[in-house]
Amino acid sequence: MLTAAEVRSACRTGNLTGATPGLAPGFVQANLVMLPKDWAFDFLLFCQRNPKPCPLLDVTDAGDPEPRAVAPGADLRVDLPAYRIWKNGELVAEPTDVREYWRDDLVSFVIGCSFTFENALIERCIPVRHIEQNRNVPMYRTNRPCKSAGRFSGPMVVSMRPLTPEQAIAATLVCGKFPLAHGAPIHFGDPAALAIADITKPDYGDAVEIRCGEQPVFWACGVTPQAALAQAKPPFAITHKPGHMFLTDLRDRDLET
Amino acid sequence: MLTAAEVRSACRTGNLTGATPGLAPGFVQANLVMLPKDWAFDFLLFCQRNPKPCPLLDVTDAGDPEPRAVAPGADLRVDLPAYRIWKNGELVAEPTDVREYWRDDLVSFVIGCSFTFENALIERCIPVRHIEQNRNVPMYRTNRPCKSAGRFSGPMVVSMRPLTPEQAIAATLVCGKFPLAHGAPIHFGDPAALAIADITKPDYGDAVEIRCGEQPVFWACGVTPQAALAQAKPPFAITHKPGHMFLTDLRDRDLET
Repeated sequence: MLTAAEVRSACRTGNLTGATPGLAPGFVQANLVMLPKDWAFDFLLFCQRNPKPCPLLDVTDAGDPEPRAVAPGADLRVDLPAYRIWKNGELVAEPTDVREYWRDDLVSFVIGCSFTFENALIERCIPVRHIEQNRNVPMYRTNRPCKSAGRFSGPMVVSMRPLTPEQAIAATLVCGKFPLAHGAPIHFGDPAALAIADITKPDYGDAVEIRCGEQPVFWACGVTPQAALAQAKPPFAITHKPGHMFLTDLRDRDLET
Repeated sequence: MLTAAEVRSACRTGNLTGATPGLAPGFVQANLVMLPKDWAFDFLLFCQRNPKPCPLLDVTDAGDPEPRAVAPGADLRVDLPAYRIWKNGELVAEPTDVREYWRDDLVSFVIGCSFTFENALIERCIPVRHIEQNRNVPMYRTNRPCKSAGRFSGPMVVSMRPLTPEQAIAATLVCGKFPLAHGAPIHFGDPAALAIADITKPDYGDAVEIRCGEQPVFWACGVTPQAALAQAKPPFAITHKPGHMFLTDLRDRDLET
Protein backbone atom coordinates (compact mmCIF):
# COMPACT_ATOMS: atom_id res chain seq x y z
CA MET A 1 0.00 0.00 0.00
CA LEU A 2 1.46 3.35 -1.06
CA THR A 3 1.03 6.58 0.90
CA ALA A 4 -0.14 9.79 -0.75
CA ALA A 5 3.41 11.18 -0.56
CA GLU A 6 4.76 8.07 -2.30
CA VAL A 7 2.18 8.41 -5.11
CA ARG A 8 3.10 12.09 -5.54
CA SER A 9 6.78 11.19 -5.62
CA ALA A 10 6.14 8.54 -8.29
CA CYS A 11 4.33 11.16 -10.37
CA ARG A 12 7.12 13.67 -9.87
CA THR A 13 9.78 11.24 -11.10
CA GLY A 14 7.64 10.18 -14.05
CA ASN A 15 7.19 6.61 -12.78
CA LEU A 16 3.40 6.98 -12.46
CA THR A 17 1.45 8.41 -15.38
CA GLY A 18 -1.74 6.29 -15.15
CA ALA A 19 -5.12 6.66 -13.47
CA THR A 20 -5.26 6.63 -9.68
CA PRO A 21 -8.42 4.72 -8.58
CA GLY A 22 -7.57 2.41 -5.70
CA LEU A 23 -4.11 3.93 -5.13
CA ALA A 24 -3.08 4.92 -1.58
CA PRO A 25 -6.38 3.83 -0.01
CA GLY A 26 -7.46 6.02 2.88
CA PHE A 27 -5.91 9.19 1.40
CA VAL A 28 -8.19 11.80 -0.16
CA GLN A 29 -7.81 12.14 -3.93
CA ALA A 30 -8.65 15.40 -5.65
CA ASN A 31 -9.51 17.08 -8.94
CA LEU A 32 -7.44 20.04 -10.10
CA VAL A 33 -8.27 23.26 -11.94
CA MET A 34 -5.71 26.03 -12.53
CA LEU A 35 -6.95 29.36 -13.93
CA PRO A 36 -5.50 32.84 -14.43
CA LYS A 37 -6.30 35.22 -11.59
CA ASP A 38 -8.74 37.26 -13.70
CA TRP A 39 -10.91 34.13 -14.09
CA ALA A 40 -10.52 32.94 -10.52
CA PHE A 41 -13.39 34.84 -8.88
CA ASP A 42 -15.93 33.52 -11.37
CA PHE A 43 -14.67 29.98 -10.88
CA LEU A 44 -14.56 30.23 -7.09
CA LEU A 45 -18.16 31.47 -7.22
CA PHE A 46 -19.06 28.58 -9.57
CA CYS A 47 -17.71 26.14 -6.96
CA GLN A 48 -19.54 27.93 -4.12
CA ARG A 49 -22.82 27.64 -6.03
CA ASN A 50 -22.25 24.04 -7.14
CA PRO A 51 -20.81 22.32 -4.09
CA LYS A 52 -22.02 18.87 -5.10
CA PRO A 53 -19.87 18.56 -8.26
CA CYS A 54 -17.25 21.09 -7.06
CA PRO A 55 -16.54 20.67 -3.31
CA LEU A 56 -13.51 22.83 -2.59
CA LEU A 57 -10.72 21.36 -0.49
CA ASP A 58 -8.08 24.04 -1.10
CA VAL A 59 -7.51 27.18 -3.16
CA THR A 60 -4.00 28.59 -3.57
CA ASP A 61 -2.80 32.15 -3.85
CA ALA A 62 -2.01 33.24 -7.42
CA GLY A 63 1.41 31.95 -8.46
CA ASP A 64 1.69 29.46 -5.59
CA PRO A 65 1.75 25.80 -6.75
CA GLU A 66 1.73 24.45 -3.16
CA PRO A 67 -1.65 23.31 -1.77
CA ARG A 68 -0.84 24.32 1.80
CA ALA A 69 -4.12 23.23 3.37
CA VAL A 70 -4.20 19.67 1.99
CA ALA A 71 -0.60 18.69 1.17
CA PRO A 72 2.07 21.06 2.52
CA GLY A 73 5.27 20.76 0.51
CA ALA A 74 3.60 19.25 -2.56
CA ASP A 75 3.91 20.84 -6.01
CA LEU A 76 0.73 20.79 -8.08
CA ARG A 77 2.78 21.28 -11.28
CA VAL A 78 4.50 17.88 -11.10
CA ASP A 79 2.70 15.77 -8.48
CA LEU A 80 -0.17 14.50 -10.65
CA PRO A 81 0.22 11.60 -13.10
CA ALA A 82 -1.28 13.48 -16.06
CA TYR A 83 -2.71 16.90 -16.91
CA ARG A 84 -4.77 18.60 -19.55
CA ILE A 85 -3.83 21.95 -21.10
CA TRP A 86 -6.75 24.08 -22.31
CA LYS A 87 -6.59 27.06 -24.66
CA ASN A 88 -9.79 28.97 -25.40
CA GLY A 89 -11.82 26.01 -24.15
CA GLU A 90 -10.03 23.51 -26.40
CA LEU A 91 -7.96 20.63 -25.09
CA VAL A 92 -4.52 21.12 -26.66
CA ALA A 93 -2.17 18.79 -24.75
CA GLU A 94 -2.03 16.07 -22.09
CA PRO A 95 1.41 16.37 -20.49
CA THR A 96 2.63 14.60 -17.33
CA ASP A 97 4.34 17.73 -15.98
CA VAL A 98 3.14 21.34 -16.40
CA ARG A 99 6.20 23.31 -15.29
CA GLU A 100 6.75 24.58 -18.83
CA TYR A 101 3.13 25.86 -18.91
CA TRP A 102 3.21 27.44 -15.45
CA ARG A 103 2.36 31.13 -15.06
CA ASP A 104 2.67 33.35 -12.02
CA ASP A 105 -0.96 34.43 -12.29
CA LEU A 106 -2.42 30.91 -11.93
CA VAL A 107 -4.76 30.14 -9.02
CA SER A 108 -5.13 26.42 -8.26
CA PHE A 109 -8.39 24.83 -7.12
CA VAL A 110 -8.23 21.43 -5.40
CA ILE A 111 -11.66 19.76 -5.55
CA GLY A 112 -12.95 16.65 -3.75
CA CYS A 113 -13.28 13.35 -5.63
CA SER A 114 -15.55 10.34 -5.40
CA PHE A 115 -12.56 8.03 -4.96
CA THR A 116 -12.73 9.09 -1.29
CA PHE A 117 -16.03 7.36 -0.65
CA GLU A 118 -15.06 4.31 -2.70
CA ASN A 119 -12.81 3.17 0.12
CA ALA A 120 -15.77 3.47 2.49
CA LEU A 121 -17.91 1.43 0.06
CA ILE A 122 -15.29 -1.31 -0.28
CA GLU A 123 -14.96 -1.53 3.51
CA ARG A 124 -18.69 -2.25 3.62
CA CYS A 125 -18.42 -4.89 0.86
CA ILE A 126 -20.27 -2.66 -1.63
CA PRO A 127 -18.61 -3.38 -4.99
CA VAL A 128 -16.79 -0.71 -6.98
CA ARG A 129 -16.81 -2.20 -10.45
CA HIS A 130 -14.10 -0.10 -12.12
CA ILE A 131 -11.67 -0.98 -9.34
CA GLU A 132 -12.62 -4.68 -9.65
CA GLN A 133 -12.04 -4.40 -13.40
CA ASN A 134 -8.88 -2.30 -12.99
CA ARG A 135 -10.30 0.50 -15.15
CA ASN A 136 -10.87 4.23 -14.84
CA VAL A 137 -14.33 5.21 -13.54
CA PRO A 138 -16.92 5.87 -16.31
CA MET A 139 -18.05 9.51 -16.46
CA TYR A 140 -20.85 11.12 -18.49
CA ARG A 141 -22.04 14.60 -19.40
CA THR A 142 -25.69 15.08 -18.38
CA ASN A 143 -28.56 17.46 -19.09
CA ARG A 144 -28.53 18.75 -15.51
CA PRO A 145 -27.40 22.39 -15.62
CA CYS A 146 -25.04 23.74 -13.01
CA LYS A 147 -25.82 27.10 -11.45
CA SER A 148 -23.95 29.67 -13.53
CA ALA A 149 -21.42 32.07 -12.00
CA GLY A 150 -20.03 34.92 -14.05
CA ARG A 151 -18.62 33.44 -17.26
CA PHE A 152 -18.98 29.85 -16.06
CA SER A 153 -21.93 27.57 -16.75
CA GLY A 154 -22.41 24.07 -18.10
CA PRO A 155 -23.83 20.63 -17.51
CA MET A 156 -23.13 18.46 -14.50
CA VAL A 157 -20.77 15.57 -15.24
CA VAL A 158 -21.47 12.37 -13.29
CA SER A 159 -19.54 9.24 -12.41
CA MET A 160 -21.31 5.86 -12.47
CA ARG A 161 -21.07 2.67 -10.42
CA PRO A 162 -23.40 -0.32 -11.02
CA LEU A 163 -25.11 -1.58 -7.85
CA THR A 164 -28.08 -3.69 -6.79
CA PRO A 165 -30.93 -1.67 -5.23
CA GLU A 166 -29.93 -2.92 -1.77
CA GLN A 167 -26.32 -1.87 -2.38
CA ALA A 168 -27.48 1.48 -3.80
CA ILE A 169 -29.42 2.23 -0.62
CA ALA A 170 -26.45 1.34 1.58
CA ALA A 171 -24.14 3.39 -0.66
CA THR A 172 -26.46 6.41 -0.37
CA LEU A 173 -26.18 6.35 3.40
CA VAL A 174 -22.39 5.90 3.33
CA CYS A 175 -21.71 8.56 0.69
CA GLY A 176 -24.06 11.04 2.37
CA LYS A 177 -21.42 11.29 5.11
CA PHE A 178 -18.88 12.67 2.62
CA PRO A 179 -20.28 15.97 1.28
CA LEU A 180 -16.75 17.12 0.35
CA ALA A 181 -16.41 14.02 -1.86
CA HIS A 182 -19.65 14.63 -3.85
CA GLY A 183 -21.89 13.09 -1.16
CA ALA A 184 -24.95 10.98 -1.93
CA PRO A 185 -25.81 9.95 -5.52
CA ILE A 186 -27.88 12.29 -7.69
CA HIS A 187 -29.71 9.58 -9.68
CA PHE A 188 -30.03 5.84 -10.22
CA GLY A 189 -31.63 3.74 -12.95
CA ASP A 190 -32.59 5.03 -16.37
CA PRO A 191 -29.60 6.86 -17.95
CA ALA A 192 -32.01 8.64 -20.32
CA ALA A 193 -33.32 10.69 -17.39
CA LEU A 194 -29.92 12.41 -17.43
CA ALA A 195 -29.85 12.44 -21.26
CA ILE A 196 -27.09 9.83 -21.31
CA ALA A 197 -27.64 8.19 -24.71
CA ASP A 198 -25.43 5.12 -24.35
CA ILE A 199 -24.21 3.89 -20.97
CA THR A 200 -21.56 1.77 -22.71
CA LYS A 201 -19.92 4.90 -24.15
CA PRO A 202 -18.79 7.20 -21.34
CA ASP A 203 -17.64 10.72 -22.22
CA TYR A 204 -14.62 10.32 -19.94
CA GLY A 205 -12.91 7.24 -18.45
CA ASP A 206 -13.78 3.62 -19.27
CA ALA A 207 -17.01 1.65 -19.63
CA VAL A 208 -17.65 -1.00 -16.95
CA GLU A 209 -19.83 -4.10 -16.86
CA ILE A 210 -23.39 -3.75 -15.50
CA ARG A 211 -24.50 -7.17 -14.27
CA CYS A 212 -27.93 -8.76 -14.00
CA GLY A 213 -29.89 -7.22 -11.09
CA GLU A 214 -27.74 -4.09 -11.05
CA GLN A 215 -28.68 -0.53 -11.97
CA PRO A 216 -26.33 2.30 -12.83
CA VAL A 217 -25.96 4.74 -9.89
CA PHE A 218 -24.77 8.26 -10.66
CA TRP A 219 -22.79 10.71 -8.54
CA ALA A 220 -21.84 14.35 -9.22
CA CYS A 221 -18.28 14.39 -10.55
CA GLY A 222 -15.28 16.69 -10.29
CA VAL A 223 -14.84 16.62 -14.07
CA THR A 224 -17.81 19.02 -14.18
CA PRO A 225 -15.41 22.03 -14.22
CA GLN A 226 -13.85 20.70 -17.44
CA ALA A 227 -17.25 20.86 -19.15
CA ALA A 228 -17.63 24.41 -17.79
CA LEU A 229 -14.16 25.34 -19.11
CA ALA A 230 -15.11 24.06 -22.56
CA GLN A 231 -18.13 26.39 -22.53
CA ALA A 232 -16.54 29.46 -20.89
CA LYS A 233 -13.40 29.25 -23.07
CA PRO A 234 -10.89 31.03 -20.84
CA PRO A 235 -7.72 31.78 -22.84
CA PHE A 236 -5.72 29.38 -20.67
CA ALA A 237 -6.35 26.67 -18.07
CA ILE A 238 -4.76 23.54 -16.69
CA THR A 239 -6.69 20.60 -15.18
CA HIS A 240 -5.91 17.03 -14.18
CA LYS A 241 -6.63 14.35 -16.79
CA PRO A 242 -9.88 12.65 -15.73
CA GLY A 243 -9.17 9.79 -13.31
CA HIS A 244 -5.56 10.93 -12.88
CA MET A 245 -5.95 12.65 -9.55
CA PHE A 246 -3.89 14.59 -7.02
CA LEU A 247 -3.23 12.62 -3.84
CA THR A 248 -3.62 14.84 -0.77
CA ASP A 249 -2.36 14.17 2.73
CA LEU A 250 -5.94 14.36 4.04
CA ARG A 251 -7.42 11.08 5.22
CA ASP A 252 -10.87 9.97 4.12
CA ARG A 253 -12.05 10.22 7.71
CA ASP A 254 -11.11 13.94 7.71
CA LEU A 255 -13.94 14.51 5.22
CA GLU A 256 -16.51 12.41 7.08
CA THR A 257 -19.28 14.41 8.77
CA MET B 1 -44.17 33.83 16.00
CA LEU B 2 -43.05 35.81 12.94
CA THR B 3 -41.82 34.23 9.72
CA ALA B 4 -38.58 35.28 8.04
CA ALA B 5 -40.56 37.12 5.36
CA GLU B 6 -42.48 39.02 8.05
CA VAL B 7 -39.25 40.05 9.78
CA ARG B 8 -37.79 41.24 6.44
CA SER B 9 -40.96 43.17 5.74
CA ALA B 10 -40.79 44.84 9.15
CA CYS B 11 -37.20 45.87 8.40
CA ARG B 12 -38.18 47.15 4.97
CA THR B 13 -40.92 49.38 6.37
CA GLY B 14 -38.67 50.64 9.17
CA ASN B 15 -40.74 49.00 11.92
CA LEU B 16 -37.87 46.76 13.03
CA THR B 17 -34.45 48.31 13.65
CA GLY B 18 -33.31 46.24 16.65
CA ALA B 19 -31.29 43.06 17.13
CA THR B 20 -32.76 39.80 15.89
CA PRO B 21 -31.86 37.02 18.42
CA GLY B 22 -34.90 34.83 19.02
CA LEU B 23 -36.92 36.33 16.14
CA ALA B 24 -38.62 33.96 13.64
CA PRO B 25 -37.39 30.80 15.38
CA GLY B 26 -36.62 28.00 12.95
CA PHE B 27 -35.49 30.35 10.17
CA VAL B 28 -31.78 30.67 9.42
CA GLN B 29 -30.33 34.09 10.28
CA ALA B 30 -27.28 35.37 8.47
CA ASN B 31 -24.41 37.83 8.54
CA LEU B 32 -23.90 40.19 5.60
CA VAL B 33 -20.82 41.58 3.86
CA MET B 34 -21.00 43.69 0.68
CA LEU B 35 -17.77 44.50 -1.13
CA PRO B 36 -16.79 46.01 -4.49
CA LYS B 37 -16.10 43.41 -7.17
CA ASP B 38 -12.35 44.06 -7.17
CA TRP B 39 -12.23 42.98 -3.51
CA ALA B 40 -14.62 40.06 -3.90
CA PHE B 41 -12.16 37.33 -4.89
CA ASP B 42 -9.94 37.96 -1.88
CA PHE B 43 -12.95 37.89 0.42
CA LEU B 44 -14.46 34.77 -1.15
CA LEU B 45 -11.09 33.08 -0.68
CA PHE B 46 -10.98 34.33 2.94
CA CYS B 47 -14.34 32.63 3.55
CA GLN B 48 -13.21 29.43 1.80
CA ARG B 49 -10.14 29.27 4.04
CA ASN B 50 -12.00 30.19 7.23
CA PRO B 51 -15.26 28.22 7.03
CA LYS B 52 -15.74 28.11 10.80
CA PRO B 53 -16.20 31.89 11.29
CA CYS B 54 -17.31 32.50 7.66
CA PRO B 55 -19.61 29.68 6.43
CA LEU B 56 -21.01 30.88 3.10
CA LEU B 57 -24.73 30.47 2.49
CA ASP B 58 -25.02 32.62 -0.65
CA VAL B 59 -22.93 34.94 -2.82
CA THR B 60 -24.62 37.27 -5.29
CA ASP B 61 -23.51 38.46 -8.69
CA ALA B 62 -22.06 41.98 -8.70
CA GLY B 63 -24.86 44.56 -8.64
CA ASP B 64 -27.56 42.07 -7.66
CA PRO B 65 -29.06 42.74 -4.19
CA GLU B 66 -31.23 39.59 -4.27
CA PRO B 67 -29.90 36.53 -2.41
CA ARG B 68 -31.43 34.04 -4.84
CA ALA B 69 -30.22 30.89 -3.11
CA VAL B 70 -31.47 31.68 0.39
CA ALA B 71 -34.33 34.21 0.04
CA PRO B 72 -35.62 34.69 -3.52
CA GLY B 73 -37.33 38.07 -3.87
CA ALA B 74 -35.62 39.62 -0.85
CA ASP B 75 -33.59 42.83 -1.11
CA LEU B 76 -30.38 42.87 0.93
CA ARG B 77 -30.34 46.70 0.79
CA VAL B 78 -33.48 47.17 2.90
CA ASP B 79 -34.35 43.82 4.52
CA LEU B 80 -31.99 44.01 7.50
CA PRO B 81 -32.81 46.02 10.66
CA ALA B 82 -29.48 47.88 10.69
CA TYR B 83 -26.26 48.15 8.70
CA ARG B 84 -22.74 49.43 9.01
CA ILE B 85 -21.03 51.53 6.34
CA TRP B 86 -17.24 51.20 6.15
CA LYS B 87 -14.82 53.53 4.37
CA ASN B 88 -11.13 52.62 4.32
CA GLY B 89 -11.70 50.23 7.22
CA GLU B 90 -13.42 52.85 9.38
CA LEU B 91 -17.02 52.59 10.51
CA VAL B 92 -18.67 55.78 9.24
CA ALA B 93 -22.43 55.21 9.60
CA GLU B 94 -25.06 52.81 10.90
CA PRO B 95 -28.13 53.31 8.68
CA THR B 96 -31.25 51.14 8.60
CA ASP B 97 -31.43 51.18 4.79
CA VAL B 98 -28.47 51.23 2.38
CA ARG B 99 -30.14 52.08 -0.92
CA GLU B 100 -28.43 55.47 -1.00
CA TYR B 101 -25.04 53.75 -0.56
CA TRP B 102 -25.68 51.00 -3.15
CA ARG B 103 -23.26 50.56 -6.04
CA ASP B 104 -23.57 48.35 -9.09
CA ASP B 105 -20.20 46.75 -8.45
CA LEU B 106 -21.13 45.35 -5.00
CA VAL B 107 -20.99 41.60 -4.41
CA SER B 108 -23.00 40.44 -1.36
CA PHE B 109 -21.88 37.60 0.90
CA VAL B 110 -24.50 35.93 3.12
CA ILE B 111 -22.78 34.08 5.97
CA GLY B 112 -24.21 31.60 8.50
CA CYS B 113 -24.94 32.72 12.07
CA SER B 114 -24.92 31.05 15.47
CA PHE B 115 -28.54 32.05 16.05
CA THR B 116 -29.37 28.96 13.95
CA PHE B 117 -28.10 26.52 16.53
CA GLU B 118 -29.57 28.49 19.43
CA ASN B 119 -33.01 27.19 18.50
CA ALA B 120 -31.64 23.65 18.62
CA LEU B 121 -30.12 24.37 22.05
CA ILE B 122 -33.36 25.80 23.43
CA GLU B 123 -35.29 22.76 22.16
CA ARG B 124 -32.94 20.63 24.26
CA CYS B 125 -33.40 22.86 27.34
CA ILE B 126 -29.83 24.18 27.07
CA PRO B 127 -30.06 27.80 28.16
CA VAL B 128 -29.19 30.70 25.85
CA ARG B 129 -28.54 33.46 28.33
CA HIS B 130 -28.74 36.51 26.03
CA ILE B 131 -32.17 35.40 24.83
CA GLU B 132 -33.28 34.83 28.44
CA GLN B 133 -32.03 38.31 29.28
CA ASN B 134 -33.41 39.83 26.07
CA ARG B 135 -30.01 41.14 25.02
CA ASN B 136 -27.74 40.92 22.01
CA VAL B 137 -25.19 38.07 22.15
CA PRO B 138 -21.78 39.09 23.59
CA MET B 139 -18.94 38.95 21.04
CA TYR B 140 -15.19 39.32 21.51
CA ARG B 141 -12.09 39.76 19.38
CA THR B 142 -9.54 37.01 20.12
CA ASN B 143 -5.86 36.30 19.51
CA ARG B 144 -6.69 33.41 17.16
CA PRO B 145 -5.56 34.43 13.68
CA CYS B 146 -7.68 33.62 10.66
CA LYS B 147 -5.94 32.20 7.61
CA SER B 148 -5.14 35.16 5.40
CA ALA B 149 -6.37 35.44 1.81
CA GLY B 150 -5.05 38.17 -0.46
CA ARG B 151 -5.55 41.47 1.34
CA PHE B 152 -7.71 39.96 4.10
CA SER B 153 -6.42 38.76 7.47
CA GLY B 154 -7.35 39.33 11.08
CA PRO B 155 -8.37 37.76 14.36
CA MET B 156 -11.27 35.40 14.86
CA VAL B 157 -14.24 37.01 16.59
CA VAL B 158 -16.21 34.73 18.90
CA SER B 159 -19.67 34.71 20.46
CA MET B 160 -20.10 33.52 24.05
CA ARG B 161 -22.81 31.62 25.94
CA PRO B 162 -22.40 30.63 29.62
CA LEU B 163 -23.10 26.94 30.28
CA THR B 164 -22.44 24.28 32.91
CA PRO B 165 -19.92 21.64 31.82
CA GLU B 166 -22.73 19.14 31.26
CA GLN B 167 -24.62 21.65 29.12
CA ALA B 168 -21.41 22.54 27.25
CA ILE B 169 -20.88 18.90 26.31
CA ALA B 170 -24.46 18.54 25.08
CA ALA B 171 -24.17 21.85 23.20
CA THR B 172 -20.97 20.65 21.49
CA LEU B 173 -22.77 17.60 20.12
CA VAL B 174 -25.79 19.63 18.99
CA CYS B 175 -23.80 22.47 17.37
CA GLY B 176 -21.45 20.04 15.65
CA LYS B 177 -24.39 19.16 13.42
CA PHE B 178 -24.52 22.73 12.09
CA PRO B 179 -21.20 23.40 10.33
CA LEU B 180 -22.83 26.18 8.25
CA ALA B 181 -23.81 27.92 11.49
CA HIS B 182 -20.25 27.94 12.98
CA GLY B 183 -20.52 24.35 14.26
CA ALA B 184 -19.03 23.17 17.56
CA PRO B 185 -17.47 25.65 20.02
CA ILE B 186 -13.80 26.58 19.64
CA HIS B 187 -13.05 27.03 23.37
CA PHE B 188 -14.56 26.99 26.84
CA GLY B 189 -13.36 28.23 30.21
CA ASP B 190 -10.55 30.74 30.69
CA PRO B 191 -11.17 33.81 28.49
CA ALA B 192 -7.47 34.71 28.79
CA ALA B 193 -6.61 31.72 26.56
CA LEU B 194 -8.22 33.71 23.75
CA ALA B 195 -6.68 36.97 25.03
CA ILE B 196 -10.08 38.25 26.13
CA ALA B 197 -9.14 40.67 28.91
CA ASP B 198 -12.56 41.28 30.49
CA ILE B 199 -15.49 38.95 29.85
CA THR B 200 -17.87 41.64 31.17
CA LYS B 201 -16.81 44.00 28.36
CA PRO B 202 -17.62 42.45 24.97
CA ASP B 203 -16.24 44.13 21.85
CA TYR B 204 -19.63 43.78 20.15
CA GLY B 205 -23.14 43.14 21.54
CA ASP B 206 -24.08 43.06 25.24
CA ALA B 207 -22.57 41.45 28.35
CA VAL B 208 -24.58 38.62 29.91
CA GLU B 209 -24.64 37.10 33.39
CA ILE B 210 -22.37 34.09 34.07
CA ARG B 211 -23.86 32.14 36.97
CA CYS B 212 -22.27 29.96 39.62
CA GLY B 213 -21.21 26.63 38.11
CA GLU B 214 -21.16 28.01 34.58
CA GLN B 215 -18.22 28.60 32.29
CA PRO B 216 -18.10 30.82 29.22
CA VAL B 217 -18.30 28.78 26.02
CA PHE B 218 -17.00 30.37 22.80
CA TRP B 219 -18.06 29.86 19.19
CA ALA B 220 -16.56 31.26 15.96
CA CYS B 221 -18.65 34.29 14.95
CA GLY B 222 -19.76 35.88 11.69
CA VAL B 223 -18.57 39.29 12.89
CA THR B 224 -15.05 38.02 12.10
CA PRO B 225 -15.23 39.61 8.60
CA GLN B 226 -15.76 43.02 10.21
CA ALA B 227 -12.45 42.67 12.06
CA ALA B 228 -10.85 41.64 8.74
CA LEU B 229 -12.40 44.68 7.01
CA ALA B 230 -10.95 46.96 9.67
CA GLN B 231 -7.48 45.55 8.91
CA ALA B 232 -7.72 45.30 5.11
CA LYS B 233 -9.26 48.78 4.76
CA PRO B 234 -11.11 48.38 1.45
CA PRO B 235 -12.25 51.82 0.22
CA PHE B 236 -15.89 50.83 0.68
CA ALA B 237 -17.92 48.07 2.32
CA ILE B 238 -21.32 47.47 3.85
CA THR B 239 -22.06 44.92 6.59
CA HIS B 240 -24.93 44.15 8.92
CA LYS B 241 -24.74 45.74 12.38
CA PRO B 242 -23.67 42.96 14.80
CA GLY B 243 -26.69 41.04 16.09
CA HIS B 244 -28.95 42.71 13.49
CA MET B 245 -29.12 39.83 11.03
CA PHE B 246 -30.66 38.98 7.70
CA LEU B 247 -33.52 36.48 7.98
CA THR B 248 -33.32 33.89 5.19
CA ASP B 249 -36.06 31.53 4.04
CA LEU B 250 -33.84 28.55 4.90
CA ARG B 251 -34.95 26.48 7.85
CA ASP B 252 -32.51 25.48 10.58
CA ARG B 253 -32.98 21.84 9.60
CA ASP B 254 -31.73 22.67 6.08
CA LEU B 255 -28.30 23.33 7.61
CA GLU B 256 -28.26 20.20 9.78
CA THR B 257 -25.85 17.48 8.65
